[in-house]
Order: sequence, then C-alpha cells, then structure tokens
Amino acid sequence: MFSIKQHSLHKAIPVEKIRYDERGLVPAIIQDYLDGTVLMMAWMNQESLQKTLETGETCFWSRSRQELWHKGATSGHIQKVQSIRYDCDSDALLIGVEQIGDIACHTGERSCFHQIEGKIAPPPGDTLSQLFDVICDRRDHPNENSYTCKLLAGGDNKILKKIGEESAEVVMACKDDDADAIAREVADLFYHTLVALAHHQVDIKAVYRKLQERRK
Amino acid sequence: MFSIKQHSLHKAIPVEKIRYDERGLVPAIIQDYLDGTVLMMAWMNQESLQKTLETGETCFWSRSRQELWHKGATSGHIQKVQSIRYDCDSDALLIGVEQIGDIACHTGERSCFHQIEGKIAPPPGDTLSQLFDVICDRRDHPNENSYTCKLLAGGDNKILKKIGEESAEVVMACKDDDADAIAREVADLFYHTLVALAHHQVDIKAVYRKLQERRK
Repeated sequence: MFSIKQHSLHKAIPVEKIRYDERGLVPAIIQDYLDGTVLMMAWMNQESLQKTLETGETCFWSRSRQELWHKGATSGHIQKVQSIRYDCDSDALLIGVEQIGDIACHTGERSCFHQIEGKIAPPPGDTLSQLFDVICDRRDHPNENSYTCKLLAGGDNKILKKIGEESAEVVMACKDDDADAIAREVADLFYHTLVALAHHQVDIKAVYRKLQERRK
Repeated sequence: MFSIKQHSLHKAIPVEKIRYDERGLVPAIIQDYLDGTVLMMAWMNQESLQKTLETGETCFWSRSRQELWHKGATSGHIQKVQSIRYDCDSDALLIGVEQIGDIACHTGERSCFHQIEGKIAPPPGDTLSQLFDVICDRRDHPNENSYTCKLLAGGDNKILKKIGEESAEVVMACKDDDADAIAREVADLFYHTLVALAHHQVDIKAVYRKLQERRK
C-alpha cells in the first residue's frame, strides 16, 4: 500500500499511547487495502493489538467468547496487515489489510456491512470498483436498453474502438487545458476501460494489485 | 453513490433493529463516498441516528459533552449522507458521505485517521487515489531520479504521447485475450492518465464525481 511498509509494522502504533475504553478495548476498522472497502469492525485489547503488530495478521478480542481471536484461524480467511493508523483521539484504529479469500464476514459475504433495508447490497468501495460491479452485473444480466450491454454485445471491436476514441479525447481536452473536459473525458476513458476488463473477465483488483506491487 | 439513492434514506436502517451497547450507543464509521477513505469514527444513539436519517446529515452523540452533535454545525464541515449500511451483527454502522470542505477532523486534517508512529501520514483511500497523491507529491517536490518527474517535466507532449501508446497496448492485450497483460497495460494507462490529471491540476475526485453523477 502506498505510504506504508516504509514504516515497519511493530513501530506503527505506540501501543501504550492507545486509549482503551473502560473494558480495555479499542475499536478496529478493517479496510481492504486495494479498493478501500470497509470489511468489518471488531475490538482489540492491548494483547491482541500487540499480537497483530508482531505477526502482521489481525488478532481481535472476542467479547462473546472472552478470548483472543486470530481472524481466519479456522476459515482460512486471514487478514494480512498492510497499514495501521490511529485517530486523533488515539481511541480507534484503522487497519488496511489484504483479505485472503476476499471474504471477511462469517456469512460468506465479502464485507460485514452488506445490509440495507434488511436486504443484501454490495458493500461500498471506491467509485471505479462500484462502477465495475455495475458493469459486471450488466454483463451477467443483460438488458437491451443499457449502453453497457450494447458495448459488451459488440465485443472487442466495439469496445476497443471506444478506448482509442476516448483516449484521443483525453489528449484533446488536455491540449485545450480545459479542466472540466479533462475530468469528463478521463471519466469516459476509465468507464470504457472497465468495460474491456469486464469483457475479458479481468478483475479491477488485478489492476490495483499491479499498481501496488510497483510501489514496493 | 452506486447502489444507493434507489433506497430512500429513512428506510435504509431499521432503527429499532440496531443493537445499541450498554450505554445506548452504536459506533458509526464515516467513509468518503468517492474514494472510500475512512474519515472518522463516532458514536450514535437512537435519537442521533433518527436525526441523521431524517435530515440526511450526520448527527452523533458526544460522549464528552453528553449531547447531540450535528457534525459541522460550527465548522461548516457537514457530512451529506449518501448511503448507510449496518453490519451482520447489527451493532455497527457504515455511512458513506460527501464531506463538505473535504475536512472531517477537528485538527484540520481530512481524516481523523492520519497518524502513523505519531507522525502525520495521509489517510488511505483506494489505490488510484493513493497513487494520485504520490504523483502530486512528485510534481510539487521534484526529484530528478523519478520517472514521474521526467514525464511531468516533458509536459503535455511527453505525457499525452504515452496515453496514446498505453491505450494502444491495452487494445493489443485485449486482442490477445491475455489477462495478465490486460491488467498490466490498464495499470500503465491509468498511471499515465493520472499524470496528465496532476499536470493539469485536475483532482481525481473530479473524475469520480463525473462518474457518480451519471449514475443518478
């Protein structure tokens, strides 16, 4: 993750500076390091935080079982810590992780935060990941009124022609130094590129992973 | 935000189903709806949750002042709710917001989670936003060994030539149906497009905003 790893993990958090509540606990927000999706929230005491920092895998305090809980120990869905930050009051933690298996919730959903109106709804990530999900949904459930579906039905020759066109429009907008046009044309280029990814069954996370690997 | 707004806000959360703790509180994680950055964590009781759902702006319970707290009432940095989800245990909330002024923390930082090793470090968002921050930092603090700085020094003619080249490479990788090459070339295209944005002082959030607006 950008701006991480240059900080060694065990020094990232001054364990003794963290303000635990009257139960000796601090809330830890777990976030996917690639697309920013919030995967879960759980509680840590000083011992589990220490263990997380030492092992590089998340370890929580289970309030119901009153014991240390190495996340993923039984399911295999462990979380490899990429970054760890604390907030301005030192009473909450934010942990960026690589989620093994891409499933954090015990229900089998990717994120614990998947409920709206009591129904399952995909967890929010960044804008491109959200858009990519919509495009994949159109691909898997075609609808003849959808522009995305028309593009996908046209295959590579239709999609790739648009990538050529949109990249040329980005070039022209930059040459005009027109900020609004640049934002609009880059949005178009990104959208059509995501359609190409969806058409070839390449996940946007594979792209994010390439970018993250280069930073290391 | 994708997959939101089709749900009307006041019905998004069954207020009576939320499990408040022994203090009558539930933690609320506040996330930027554009790039997924976690901005802050605060507490809600049933009344403040109700008010948040009714007004569409976040309202918390201040544990120190023991009173309702309309976030931004004095600073102007209010948060417009774009989505609200609850977790599998119904004891934590995740709220996607448009952060007015792009500052959530009372310190003036964008996110409350800005500390690593006691130093200020930019909060994590999605991969492209993180990369964009690095590119802007190179632009503002040039370093002659950096490839990004060389590109920026070459201006539009150097940067835009690369956009043409990389988009052609995406086209070829798709024609070869080579998943690894597609991910790699799209990563290259995204990176060079971000350099063009940085060169023209256009924020990646302006691009995200264009994409979000189209979905509404």
